[in-house]
Amino acid sequence: MTQNPGKFIVIEGLEGAGKSSAITLVHDFIEKHTGMAPVCTREPGGTPLAEKIRDLVKNAEPGDPLCDEAECLLFYAARAQLVANVIKPSLASGRWVLGDRHNLSSIAYQGGGRGLMSLVKTISDATLGGFKPDLTLYLDIDPLLGLERAARRGALDRIEQQEIDFFHRARATFLAQARDDSSIVVIDASKPLNEVHKDILACLSTAL
Amino acid sequence: MTQNPGKFIVIEGLEGAGKSSAITLVHDFIEKHTGMAPVCTREPGGTPLAEKIRDLVKNAEPGDPLCDEAECLLFYAARAQLVANVIKPSLASGRWVLGDRHNLSSIAYQGGGRGLMSLVKTISDATLGGFKPDLTLYLDIDPLLGLERAARRGALDRIEQQEIDFFHRARATFLAQARDDSSIVVIDASKPLNEVHKDILACLSTAL
Repeated sequence: MTQNPGKFIVIEGLEGAGKSSAITLVHDFIEKHTGMAPVCTREPGGTPLAEKIRDLVKNAEPGDPLCDEAECLLFYAARAQLVANVIKPSLASGRWVLGDRHNLSSIAYQGGGRGLMSLVKTISDATLGGFKPDLTLYLDIDPLLGLERAARRGALDRIEQQEIDFFHRARATFLAQARDDSSIVVIDASKPLNEVHKDILACLSTAL
Repeated sequence: MTQNPGKFIVIEGLEGAGKSSAITLVHDFIEKHTGMAPVCTREPGGTPLAEKIRDLVKNAEPGDPLCDEAECLLFYAARAQLVANVIKPSLASGRWVLGDRHNLSSIAYQGGGRGLMSLVKTISDATLGGFKPDLTLYLDIDPLLGLERAARRGALDRIEQQEIDFFHRARATFLAQARDDSSIVVIDASKPLNEVHKDILACLSTAL
């Protein structure tokens, strides 16, 4: 067993940006690179309790619409649980962790999309401290194209049913965060899949 | 219908302090005083979604212990939902609201008990702003006596199973908050029940 802590790699992107196939690609890259498969997480979720929280935010309660502040707090409750019980222990033991979304999603969707940036930053700082991924790949796509792809997969969930402006604001926030943080790399996800994957592998080879 | 906003009255206290019978008493007092029964809430809970969150914090998930930060965020998620969808609309329509616990419980249990006061105050300020009860009756009791009473009612839940020092710290925080905030009145709940109820009614008559 290596004594070095593992690395935490996160894939971010709007619905339909191609996160799932990117995760498979990055998973295989990490396995070859380190000789061991990464611990895979998804947010919200990734622990038994966090998965129950995921159900609460994904599915509207009839007659009790989820208010924006409660939504934001639920995402961070699930994240705190995942970080404490899965991500940090895995990294400490030398395992790499591959995340399907992390804190940047809250900044983009709740902060940018819902206009709750001050609340999001406050809760993020208070609960995560300085903890953040070593590398985030943000798969950038026009919301209209992404939602068209997502709709082809099946019924849209509560968040995927937001108005298009919500996703435009989220995208603008993803891009603004990437400009300010060199650990976030923007991948043009509107290209053909084989080119997107080539760009992801090139980015991983450079960064790791 | 009155156009005056209603008042928000909260009953707080450690397990076994006698909250349930106090709530019945205060409920009847409000009904006589205003001519209308108050809207009754409990925390965590009080909306369909908040009741699901209550289940998550009350019942441990095997193999996935609830971390302190996630517990705190879940309490505030439930509270944000209850305030937005029940308490504020009720008060605005002129109804009085009678709460079985509110923010002071998070300050006492998570802030004092768990030692997360800075996180609690940050989240409280960020999500509630200045919103607070018009009057809080804190039923004060020695934790040993209270837990003895609570145990007689049946099996203790996850929080009721904490070590006794946790409840001593929570009690000290309840009392300290009452010293700093004139809207919190301490009721000595170790007295015989008829005297406790006499004290509660005297307090309500003075305050309202």
